[in-house]
Amino acid sequence: MTDPMRCKTAIVGIGETEFSDNSGRSEQRIAMEAVILALEDAGLKADDVEGIVSCDYDNVNQIELINSLGFRNVKAYAEVGHAGGAPPGAVAQAAAMIVSGMAKCVVGYRAMNERSQFRYGTRNEQDMIPDPKWAKMFQHHAPYGLTVPAEWTAIMARRRMIEFGETREQWGHIPVTFRKHANQNPHARFYKKTMTMEDYLAAPILADPLCRFDYCLETDGAIAFIVTSAELAKTLKQPPAYIYAAVQAATFPIQYLTNYYRESLTTYYEMEASANEIYKKSGLGPNDIDVAQVYDHFTPWVLATLEAFGFCKKGEAGAFAADGQIGLGGQIPLNTAGGHLSEGYIHGWSLINEGVRQARGTSTAQVKDCEFSLVTSACGCPTSAFILSR
Amino acid sequence: MTDPMRCKTAIVGIGETEFSDNSGRSEQRIAMEAVILALEDAGLKADDVEGIVSCDYDNVNQIELINSLGFRNVKAYAEVGHAGGAPPGAVAQAAAMIVSGMAKCVVGYRAMNERSQFRYGTRNEQDMIPDPKWAKMFQHHAPYGLTVPAEWTAIMARRRMIEFGETREQWGHIPVTFRKHANQNPHARFYKKTMTMEDYLAAPILADPLCRFDYCLETDGAIAFIVTSAELAKTLKQPPAYIYAAVQAATFPIQYLTNYYRESLTTYYEMEASANEIYKKSGLGPNDIDVAQVYDHFTPWVLATLEAFGFCKKGEAGAFAADGQIGLGGQIPLNTAGGHLSEGYIHGWSLINEGVRQARGTSTAQVKDCEFSLVTSACGCPTSAFILSR
Repeated sequence: MTDPMRCKTAIVGIGETEFSDNSGRSEQRIAMEAVILALEDAGLKADDVEGIVSCDYDNVNQIELINSLGFRNVKAYAEVGHAGGAPPGAVAQAAAMIVSGMAKCVVGYRAMNERSQFRYGTRNEQDMIPDPKWAKMFQHHAPYGLTVPAEWTAIMARRRMIEFGETREQWGHIPVTFRKHANQNPHARFYKKTMTMEDYLAAPILADPLCRFDYCLETDGAIAFIVTSAELAKTLKQPPAYIYAAVQAATFPIQYLTNYYRESLTTYYEMEASANEIYKKSGLGPNDIDVAQVYDHFTPWVLATLEAFGFCKKGEAGAFAADGQIGLGGQIPLNTAGGHLSEGYIHGWSLINEGVRQARGTSTAQVKDCEFSLVTSACGCPTSAFILSR
Repeated sequence: MTDPMRCKTAIVGIGETEFSDNSGRSEQRIAMEAVILALEDAGLKADDVEGIVSCDYDNVNQIELINSLGFRNVKAYAEVGHAGGAPPGAVAQAAAMIVSGMAKCVVGYRAMNERSQFRYGTRNEQDMIPDPKWAKMFQHHAPYGLTVPAEWTAIMARRRMIEFGETREQWGHIPVTFRKHANQNPHARFYKKTMTMEDYLAAPILADPLCRFDYCLETDGAIAFIVTSAELAKTLKQPPAYIYAAVQAATFPIQYLTNYYRESLTTYYEMEASANEIYKKSGLGPNDIDVAQVYDHFTPWVLATLEAFGFCKKGEAGAFAADGQIGLGGQIPLNTAGGHLSEGYIHGWSLINEGVRQARGTSTAQVKDCEFSLVTSACGCPTSAFILSR
């Protein structure tokens, strides 16, 4: 049976503010700006909005958007959790709202002054996890010891070196490639900053084996997107980016990046579940995917995604990246706007918009004749993915 | 066109812990207990669970349930916000997950030690609204002035007295009727405590014009429910409670109970939107509904719901209640387990389970030949409702 969601909906509008280290405005303000841009991009008005999806981490309450933007017709609302695992899941929930008849047009948003106000990368657990929903899971490794995502990641990443003999030079091809993409994207924070492999290898190690350039860019900025029914999409301003399939996935057991008690530290169970589900629903395989936006909060998770989604074999992602397969002209160009490492970190949501640009054919690092554009999300937590088609 | 959601899904399992003023256990523990009971009720196992919905307020992270209950097949997850407006919306999202093909079986839960640990009715705003998502909307009326839900409600309730000449004696029929229902329900906190109109009228006024018995019972407890496809539902242990229609609704402008800047303080815009949407989707009207569970955090909101859903005319709900129309044998029996006023306050989620019992025919205050069982949620915020059918 064809998946009930296939091509029934489309992303028809995208919006984003500038990405910076200090927006100088409130998170609500930048959320509004991104949503207005997305509506304008689609050629829709506030009265068309019938649904809202957002990240449960977001500090901008949905009612503040209703009140500030004058949404009078909201008939569906949901939040999606699990941090960087959320964004394609928000697209999936928006599609589910439409397919189930709850709403005709759904807006998704993520706004964060994540550099100037609420840093995720600091050691201040109280800033990062202010309520009991988050505090409990950190009780075994904080506030002393492993307190920040880079440290959680470093342990998993080191294991790849041990098991597969991966090298930092192999890894370096990832940030260097993404930087090249950012250098083509005027919207990227590092548009004008070039980086060579020599720069990478000379960078200070911050959480061994991760160096500075393995870290995403803590960023202020906001993202919004609009999903409508496929019928409505055909009447709007932009070429529709059809949602060919959208999935979420979790596995047992699961933590937030601290999955140290699984059988293997180099098997990415939830990413494999996400990949299996989206290939099953779409009937597609890794060879059908023309371009992918993957969650690169730290370099090594890109390797995990490449393997889980079958772009290369387990243990070979380092060599695959070093072989030039993740840049333009390679087997699977990744993070064509620069990704979290060089465009800016908006908790995965900027990847949605670049996925749409690839489906539209308007990326600054466009993959030619792009038919299927994949967007994934964070590894090491409940996760999600979607595939767009022209 | 028939609503794509109609009767495509059913609530097939319900579970709840005891309701008390001190559970003596963690919120995670009681969440687990309720979910296990719901699975047992349905005749399903942990491996059947493919989706999770919960309240964004909930302190129990979804991954803690995955880890503690061994859910290995989760393919969909969402949270629903807006406090007491959430619960039927969680049912709607679960149904949307199933209709859109994301999951076959979805569990919803709400766990709160709301009396012993995290009281909503205290003046300590820092306990109640610990993160920026909530803090911002209270900036205009807290921490001094209007700080607790009863105070927000009192202003709206007084306006009914002014506009409609409603009396406290009319209002008293609501808690007195619900208490009678609770006296039939061994699970209710006030199962053994009777209450008369004299008791009501003699009770201390806490937030004028609200007296003690107009307040819901802050309660420790947990609720869970299971939604599956209609096909799967037919094979399970319990008679399916089909989800005939499920909606969410918000209007502009909207706050959390503090909607003082609208044209009318006695028109319940979001409740009217919710009612209009569910009647439109279901093709039903108020005369088709056999029984309703409505959000009674404070007595006056019951009046609002009666009017918005068309069970009586605007301004006549007080007389309608006083006329015996909300008890068994009346036009629309309400809150047959005792409601938040006398069974226990689990943030609206207990109303879901009683709605299911009415659809099954197993309530302790069962409405005979119940065909359509309505469950609504909080007034004064983004809200939601569903109708179950046998």
